[in-house]
Amino acid sequence: MKAEILSIGDEILIGQILNTNSVWMAQQLNLIGINVNYMATISDNEEAIIKAFKDAEERADIVLITGGLGPTRDDITKTTIAKYFNVPLVIDEDVLSDVSSFFTKRGRALTQLNKDQALVPKGCTVIRNRNGTAPGMWLKKGDTVFVSMPGVPYEMKPIMEDFVFPELKKLFKLPFIYHKTVLTHGLGESFLAEKIEKWEDGLVLKNIKLAYLPQPGIVRLRLSASGTESVAILKKNVEEEINNLKTYIEEYIYGYEEYGQEQPSLEKIVSDLLRLNGKTVSVAESCTGGYVSSLFTAIPGSSEIFKGGIVPYTNEAKHNLLEVNEYVFKEYGAVSEQCVIALAEGVIKKLKSNYSIAISGVAGPSGGTPEKPVGFVWVAVSNGKITETKSFQFGEHRGRNIIMTANAAINLLRKFILNNQ
Amino acid sequence: MKAEILSIGDEILIGQILNTNSVWMAQQLNLIGINVNYMATISDNEEAIIKAFKDAEERADIVLITGGLGPTRDDITKTTIAKYFNVPLVIDEDVLSDVSSFFTKRGRALTQLNKDQALVPKGCTVIRNRNGTAPGMWLKKGDTVFVSMPGVPYEMKPIMEDFVFPELKKLFKLPFIYHKTVLTHGLGESFLAEKIEKWEDGLVLKNIKLAYLPQPGIVRLRLSASGTESVAILKKNVEEEINNLKTYIEEYIYGYEEYGQEQPSLEKIVSDLLRLNGKTVSVAESCTGGYVSSLFTAIPGSSEIFKGGIVPYTNEAKHNLLEVNEYVFKEYGAVSEQCVIALAEGVIKKLKSNYSIAISGVAGPSGGTPEKPVGFVWVAVSNGKITETKSFQFGEHRGRNIIMTANAAINLLRKFILNNQ
Repeated sequence: MKAEILSIGDEILIGQILNTNSVWMAQQLNLIGINVNYMATISDNEEAIIKAFKDAEERADIVLITGGLGPTRDDITKTTIAKYFNVPLVIDEDVLSDVSSFFTKRGRALTQLNKDQALVPKGCTVIRNRNGTAPGMWLKKGDTVFVSMPGVPYEMKPIMEDFVFPELKKLFKLPFIYHKTVLTHGLGESFLAEKIEKWEDGLVLKNIKLAYLPQPGIVRLRLSASGTESVAILKKNVEEEINNLKTYIEEYIYGYEEYGQEQPSLEKIVSDLLRLNGKTVSVAESCTGGYVSSLFTAIPGSSEIFKGGIVPYTNEAKHNLLEVNEYVFKEYGAVSEQCVIALAEGVIKKLKSNYSIAISGVAGPSGGTPEKPVGFVWVAVSNGKITETKSFQFGEHRGRNIIMTANAAINLLRKFILNNQ
Repeated sequence: MKAEILSIGDEILIGQILNTNSVWMAQQLNLIGINVNYMATISDNEEAIIKAFKDAEERADIVLITGGLGPTRDDITKTTIAKYFNVPLVIDEDVLSDVSSFFTKRGRALTQLNKDQALVPKGCTVIRNRNGTAPGMWLKKGDTVFVSMPGVPYEMKPIMEDFVFPELKKLFKLPFIYHKTVLTHGLGESFLAEKIEKWEDGLVLKNIKLAYLPQPGIVRLRLSASGTESVAILKKNVEEEINNLKTYIEEYIYGYEEYGQEQPSLEKIVSDLLRLNGKTVSVAESCTGGYVSSLFTAIPGSSEIFKGGIVPYTNEAKHNLLEVNEYVFKEYGAVSEQCVIALAEGVIKKLKSNYSIAISGVAGPSGGTPEKPVGFVWVAVSNGKITETKSFQFGEHRGRNIIMTANAAINLLRKFILNNQ
């Protein structure tokens, strides 16, 4: 089963827009067992579009087309499709009524250009667009399916999810597929690969593919099983292998991602854990400068679990706001185990939370010393009675150090909560 | 002058990698006056690559190819180029010595696969790669230039910048080009367009193109002039038009971006302003939850200008940490002008900064009331003597509201500093 993705639009060719549609479509198609063999971006030009259609028809079973469906004169995809299929454009009454109500709702008058959005190539299957005025269109030429959709991602994605994927699954005999992703923190990609080498070798026998998907501090391991039996069997195989995997790297696993779900972030997992237990957290962070707080508060409903944060960027602030004793700075420095312990215990008192995170480090690019080079960080987590600390040595890149530190600190709290409930 | 961009690699076709190379290349080519007419992503498959080369040769003057140059067996771009140009692969001694020293430096042994990186199609112009082992290759067939480069962005970009762009400028008679971007905050794209409609109409006469580049709360206006006279004349024309533009929207302009420079963020502009005056800032932010602090502290050297931040996420924290009087909550609520004034004046005292920002609002998705709906925000900025406030009504999306609020608050401080030095 071969698919081809055609993006039509000058705005991509002049580099004004990053083409995120095609990467999303490729991912989704892959996940249901369809390979993408070719992607192209074509100018809003009839000759170029027709040439691309011809080439695609020769190569592919499915041609997914986005863009060029707007009401203005520069958008010519629809007329070009009609020409390629040698059919006239006709008004689709359902679409016309969708378009009319779209404008009525917004209190705007319907122009002729808007009405023309209801024109579709005769004989095509019309796919209603619930987020815009240009409908999707499904056509067949020989054995090849052509689907044309708007280029706006939030219009295209529902059309794909609601209609195109289910239809492709009906039309083509696709293999059964099951995916599950193991979320790990704390081991770089190559170290992880070394640790699980033997396990990975065994996956071939079970027809399970493994993908390493790295992020700063995090590696997601996606297991994909495909076969002709049933999803239940595939799922059983994948779960068995994940159980085996645990014997190698259980302490690095912080969660799982089921197919179709969004990746649960570390802060989401910790927030859910806190909410479940009716507990709260506060944060005192120096070198991450508010980033850890911003991660927790980006989650809707965070006020249930987040009491507040303090960014004591100077020693004076650490002393004034969180009562870190000045001898700590003199004796050990601001980037020290003693300092993060004082911060963690100080912020828990000030903000009356159940747990706290404290961070002090050298984000870089300057400020490093031989003993505490750029990328060196102390983290503490506390529940007011017990305080646990850990130091890390990250890299030279400030932005990356901030993200790595935040993930490491949040994961340390996750483990601490599980061990000290 | 027509260019075509070919990306070779299965990792893009399975959706594992977002193709940022082609958007960057398209932008850069456009900026020097070369149009991109076609982009394609092709599988690591000889037949598919050769077909793409043929099509490109027919259509384009310049074909830029990335990817497929790694040492492993699945990478076949180089052998396919040799086949297409009908020449053998020969060892390039300079590249061989580069590759050898690359591995020697890293203390690793040189394998045959590594040595093969020095093989290039006979007769091609070799482009040294200072960040990796695969060299770039420049070849000509008929009137069409083919350039093959590694797909790793930090290897490809220097090859383009150091060699390809200068060479293309020499080889092709390109027009003179001058770009300058006006950075605006506070007016949505369509409102801005309405305000500057007349001015925009006049640009045609001067042969200046205008692009609207929107971000949350921000619209960048890029003016591009091209012509056959000289850059000095183009620059003069653009500067004149920017002066005219000021009569329409001066109060919305917060900065400029010269071609080749990175876009200066609002927080960078404010940080530079503070540093220049030897002043500091602190932040008390509720609904933005640490995001404003994290923006300032993401900038290297921020400890010179940033004293610290407080995220008082509860009324209790606002009272305990920043001495907001409890009658403020009872009388006006936490999202009120009175509250942000107290926060701004409280944090300036606590953190002994010259300026402060305070924020309280309803980020959403829940928590809205008829008087203070989701997206409603109060912001205050202060220098300890004068405190200025402003309210905003943003939208329904939590993440977007946080970004819009942060940008609005930082811009309010920028204006405040300029007016109250």
